[in-house]
Amino acid sequence: MDIKLENDEVVDDLQYKGLKIIQNNKWFKYGIDSVILSDFARHLKDNSIVVDIGTGTGIIGLLLCGKTKLKKIYGIEIQSNVAEMARKSIALNNLEDRFEIINKDIIDISNQEILKNNSIDYIVMNPPYKEKGTGIINEKNEKIISRHETTATLEDFIKISSKLLRDKGTIYMVHRPERLVDIFSIMRKHKIEPKRIRLVYPSIDKEPNIVLIEGIKGALKFLKVEKPLVIYRDNGDYTKEIKEIYNIKEG
Amino acid sequence: MDIKLENDEVVDDLQYKGLKIIQNNKWFKYGIDSVILSDFARHLKDNSIVVDIGTGTGIIGLLLCGKTKLKKIYGIEIQSNVAEMARKSIALNNLEDRFEIINKDIIDISNQEILKNNSIDYIVMNPPYKEKGTGIINEKNEKIISRHETTATLEDFIKISSKLLRDKGTIYMVHRPERLVDIFSIMRKHKIEPKRIRLVYPSIDKEPNIVLIEGIKGALKFLKVEKPLVIYRDNGDYTKEIKEIYNIKEG
Repeated sequence: MDIKLENDEVVDDLQYKGLKIIQNNKWFKYGIDSVILSDFARHLKDNSIVVDIGTGTGIIGLLLCGKTKLKKIYGIEIQSNVAEMARKSIALNNLEDRFEIINKDIIDISNQEILKNNSIDYIVMNPPYKEKGTGIINEKNEKIISRHETTATLEDFIKISSKLLRDKGTIYMVHRPERLVDIFSIMRKHKIEPKRIRLVYPSIDKEPNIVLIEGIKGALKFLKVEKPLVIYRDNGDYTKEIKEIYNIKEG
Repeated sequence: MDIKLENDEVVDDLQYKGLKIIQNNKWFKYGIDSVILSDFARHLKDNSIVVDIGTGTGIIGLLLCGKTKLKKIYGIEIQSNVAEMARKSIALNNLEDRFEIINKDIIDISNQEILKNNSIDYIVMNPPYKEKGTGIINEKNEKIISRHETTATLEDFIKISSKLLRDKGTIYMVHRPERLVDIFSIMRKHKIEPKRIRLVYPSIDKEPNIVLIEGIKGALKFLKVEKPLVIYRDNGDYTKEIKEIYNIKEG
């Protein structure tokens, strides 16, 4: 298949089972958050149906296709130009049978022909971190939508997930620790019980700047807080665990 | 003053500014939780009015009298024999002017002559960790009340705190990480915003087993998750920070 790159589009190697991704140098590029979220979700069951809400470049879906035996993942992306680029990445990796992009606003996706309510096994999401009306907005539109809650709030993301998930279906989310109270309160309000979190620390003597959250629809209460995930060692190298997640050979 | 010890009562040295505590060998004895909670609350402002809800042996109040310039701390304790022992510890340390025990059920303490609603600057609490109906109960009555929510639930503790605290008054709590979702949800329900937490890890490669929480009445949203508090080093020694908290000299 012939894939045409637009201006400012580049192909990056994901260093994992030959996977590649197309990104636009002027838009939001994937970061460590998406990579560690894919790792946090890596034990999802074979033959599952998965939805990635706010899929962006498609990074999480591409990695999950490589790391798991999911049957199908649907990536919902509101921005048509970003959705188109993700489709090209899917084609580049010959994943059209397992990864499909739906170019819609997440607010409109509940209970449609493809995505029925109470049917999805897993939802992954790396939602915008900044609440509407907070932070400085001086970026291009594609970046604003990826980083700020301009089109949908955290509560929209969770409410829609709760509708789509089957009973005991699971959300995997990456977010900022400062929003944990919001995340827990909103999840519980929508019958998603937070069951597992992992805090991610730049180094062991620093405050965490990322949190991974697993919530299960209709589950009983009991939160497991996992051991810290530390990014850098004292000498500035990645830790052993981060090297494993990024598939970097030791030595 | 002459202080008479009952059978099974012993005097322990807190290794801090000469403070001593009386404990009963058959009852609940204070643990590291109370010591690190006192440290977590050590920046409370001079001349403050403080309430310790569920004061037990009085450990937190004794340490706060040593670590801070609080004006007065009231310790609420439901068990009359435990309250009596705490009073003896207060006398032993000559702290009768600053630390007073109120032998009441916390459910009855709101808006009384001494403790008026919307008047208290700080509340500290080390509530029972186990939810009613969970865990194995095969202990003596004094231990059950200290460890299980038999007489008051977590929501009772927080609801009463919210009534007593003045606007922008602060709760300092120590609890188990597995209850964080409950704590955040219940605090927000009662207009206490969780503002700061610190997770306590037995060692850096283990899951945390204690969490410290600061909540402020009527505050804006924004949670600060602090750097990890680690108890033991690889070699089994206490870490530098724990030695400082326990006032153990290096060497």
